[in-house]
Amino acid sequence: MSSDISGFRFSAKAARTATQPINFLVELALHDKDGKLISLAAGLVDEQTLPADEVRRLTGELLADEVLGRKALQYGTTAGLAELRETILDYVCNLDGVTSGELSLTPDNVIVASGSQQLLYIITDILVDPGDIVITEWPSYFVYTGALVSLGASVRAVEMDDEGMSTDTLKSTLEDLKRSGDLERVKIVYLCDYYQNPTGITLSQRRREELLAIVRSYSTGHRICILEDAAYRELSCEGPAPRSIKSYEHDNAQVVLAQTFSKPFSPGLKTGYAILPDEMVEPVLNQKGGHDFGSSNFAQHILLRAMRSGVYAEHVEILKRRYKAKRDATLKALEENLGDFEPERTSWTLPGGGLYVYLTLPERFDTGPEEDLFNAAMDEGVLYVPGEYCYGPDPRRKPERNHIRLTFGTVDEQAIGEGVARLARAVRRTADPGRRSIQSPSGLNVES
Amino acid sequence: MSSDISGFRFSAKAARTATQPINFLVELALHDKDGKLISLAAGLVDEQTLPADEVRRLTGELLADEVLGRKALQYGTTAGLAELRETILDYVCNLDGVTSGELSLTPDNVIVASGSQQLLYIITDILVDPGDIVITEWPSYFVYTGALVSLGASVRAVEMDDEGMSTDTLKSTLEDLKRSGDLERVKIVYLCDYYQNPTGITLSQRRREELLAIVRSYSTGHRICILEDAAYRELSCEGPAPRSIKSYEHDNAQVVLAQTFSKPFSPGLKTGYAILPDEMVEPVLNQKGGHDFGSSNFAQHILLRAMRSGVYAEHVEILKRRYKAKRDATLKALEENLGDFEPERTSWTLPGGGLYVYLTLPERFDTGPEEDLFNAAMDEGVLYVPGEYCYGPDPRRKPERNHIRLTFGTVDEQAIGEGVARLARAVRRTADPGRRSIQSPSGLNVES
Repeated sequence: MSSDISGFRFSAKAARTATQPINFLVELALHDKDGKLISLAAGLVDEQTLPADEVRRLTGELLADEVLGRKALQYGTTAGLAELRETILDYVCNLDGVTSGELSLTPDNVIVASGSQQLLYIITDILVDPGDIVITEWPSYFVYTGALVSLGASVRAVEMDDEGMSTDTLKSTLEDLKRSGDLERVKIVYLCDYYQNPTGITLSQRRREELLAIVRSYSTGHRICILEDAAYRELSCEGPAPRSIKSYEHDNAQVVLAQTFSKPFSPGLKTGYAILPDEMVEPVLNQKGGHDFGSSNFAQHILLRAMRSGVYAEHVEILKRRYKAKRDATLKALEENLGDFEPERTSWTLPGGGLYVYLTLPERFDTGPEEDLFNAAMDEGVLYVPGEYCYGPDPRRKPERNHIRLTFGTVDEQAIGEGVARLARAVRRTADPGRRSIQSPSGLNVES
Repeated sequence: MSSDISGFRFSAKAARTATQPINFLVELALHDKDGKLISLAAGLVDEQTLPADEVRRLTGELLADEVLGRKALQYGTTAGLAELRETILDYVCNLDGVTSGELSLTPDNVIVASGSQQLLYIITDILVDPGDIVITEWPSYFVYTGALVSLGASVRAVEMDDEGMSTDTLKSTLEDLKRSGDLERVKIVYLCDYYQNPTGITLSQRRREELLAIVRSYSTGHRICILEDAAYRELSCEGPAPRSIKSYEHDNAQVVLAQTFSKPFSPGLKTGYAILPDEMVEPVLNQKGGHDFGSSNFAQHILLRAMRSGVYAEHVEILKRRYKAKRDATLKALEENLGDFEPERTSWTLPGGGLYVYLTLPERFDTGPEEDLFNAAMDEGVLYVPGEYCYGPDPRRKPERNHIRLTFGTVDEQAIGEGVARLARAVRRTADPGRRSIQSPSGLNVES
């Protein structure tokens, strides 16, 4: 057989879908054979905290039950395990201090999926045709903005301050879209509103009800969906996190609340969930029916046992203490190593939880992966996520290039301190290239 | 807040995506509170064979290893666990009696996903724009044809005989499409070529190389993908199954081979895989990056241990014996109960493996869910899948309505015998409604 045939003819969607830039960082970390690189980039959870003993016990009990064990290894349903969906609804309502009845919710409004990302994707896919508009924070979560590019969405980004998305700017953005006749194309307002990825910022309590009212007031021709990504919600360092936007909506009309078991328990079980308006349940299930007709039933049975036995809640408490110590170590190291560095133009966020701190350098810095700072950081032995990855395709804006996402998820306090010290050396070297030859004579990856 | 807002404005894709008709059957089975219904419909695996003890042991060992246990509970990669992908490649090449080198394959050509369905979906999504053409068997697997409708594909179906898809008709179909100028829109030839769902028919060995040569000969403008769904491949009743179509392709140009751990091990672990041409790897990973950036790492670690320890291979042998006994029971019951029923116009397939037998009734029968036969069967207490669900949207054809898919997956031999006897009674009652009042006086669901 001849092999001189042409290539595949890919779809428009395949052509739109780019490789996630973060993959480049994963590759760099994988090639660090001697383990000298400190990764303040990887969005993984703290491996030491992963509940191996707990999952061993729960799985052992589950599979020792002859009937239940086999049920867990059989196919489940597209929506997910009924008992788990009931338990999730109670759990989330409890976090919000409301009853499911007050929010017009039943377990049928809960859908379980392969991580909350799968639901963010599917919900966007059922609402967005190419050219439709999704409003996001500026910056936003890069996996989601990548999916927006893939689905052909047009992004309008809204600035954040230390209270999260600016509700004033959201309102003026919607008003502008209304005036230009584009409101009918606005399908979703997406927020990662707890300890945001990448900034660590949380939408303040007072803005939540206000944001809902604004979006509802512009939902005249059709419902604009508020897609509330609360992946980091449970990982609070300082007392309880705010109530969800969802909890202010009593008619379950248009807010989707997405959460996950990945961050607060185990990413390896790859299970997330969302609470959906009635009208959205069937369209989401229809899509999920085509994707995979249901996520791992085995993982769902394990998680049900974890929740019912109290193991899950205990584990969240352990994680909160652990991540608080690591957040504190990150902030302390930043203060010690960069506190005196051009303080008028250098700053970082003070997250109340989650896994991320966002560092802003003076505007002349470019944190991109081809640039001096990134190379200097690699040379020092520290990896970070360039902020430019976190800005969606808003035609009115250019990605900002002087930010860095630092993750305190994977590394321990000592490595955090050392990693931030290395980063600070790279920043100072890049700010003042003359210092370079003194501090790092090897300079393998550094352009002079 | 007012709740008199309008509904969501859904995407064109959401509008195209229908609820799977099979869900109706699942509902019926769920409402069978007293357990009197025998389901010859549900495509589940035999629950008694599910490897609960084996998975308990493998999981216990995995999680007792402090380092490995935590790794399994951490995020994996989008492509899947590297060691599992290596093991899969060796395994599949061994099934085909070839080396990976002979097929120009490396573990980078293997991608693991949430069941093989996720890969069937994504591969179709990266190739098919609305209006593009996918060639399938007639009948075909209804979850896949449902995805084709959702993605806006146009279907051209090719008849099957007892050697599977007719290669002559495939060739004439491609020739017709070439003549009408539509060849450039033909993206995929999809086959479930081992113990097909729904017919149980296997593509004969001699047609495999021929089919590949035909598709290659029409891949002049672009590569037409052969999507080989080998989900049931390992469940052979009568000696080894044929070699895959993939195994005849030495340059890895255009055949995708998709297999799964669901049928031969455990659906609850929701893990499948595909072996892809080089050119397709990155586009598939990019889509999967947006869907979920990787499937359950925990399940993959369990399956790696199952394969390496020999537990997987042993389990497949157990299943083969088990399903052979159940296939034999199905065929025996059909012979005993319907062997004398209008034998010129009543027939069933003789599958060499898998989970399905396809029953053809005289053409005056309509097996649809609103029709007399289905109601009579429900009244007798047996559930089947109407054949009409298995015919994709080929604009030249109408779904055939006189077939039934019978599954011997879930029920035991005794229930198979009783289920087929009930079905035969329903067939005879529908053929000759006068007999009804004698044999089944209750007739709750039966229209007279």
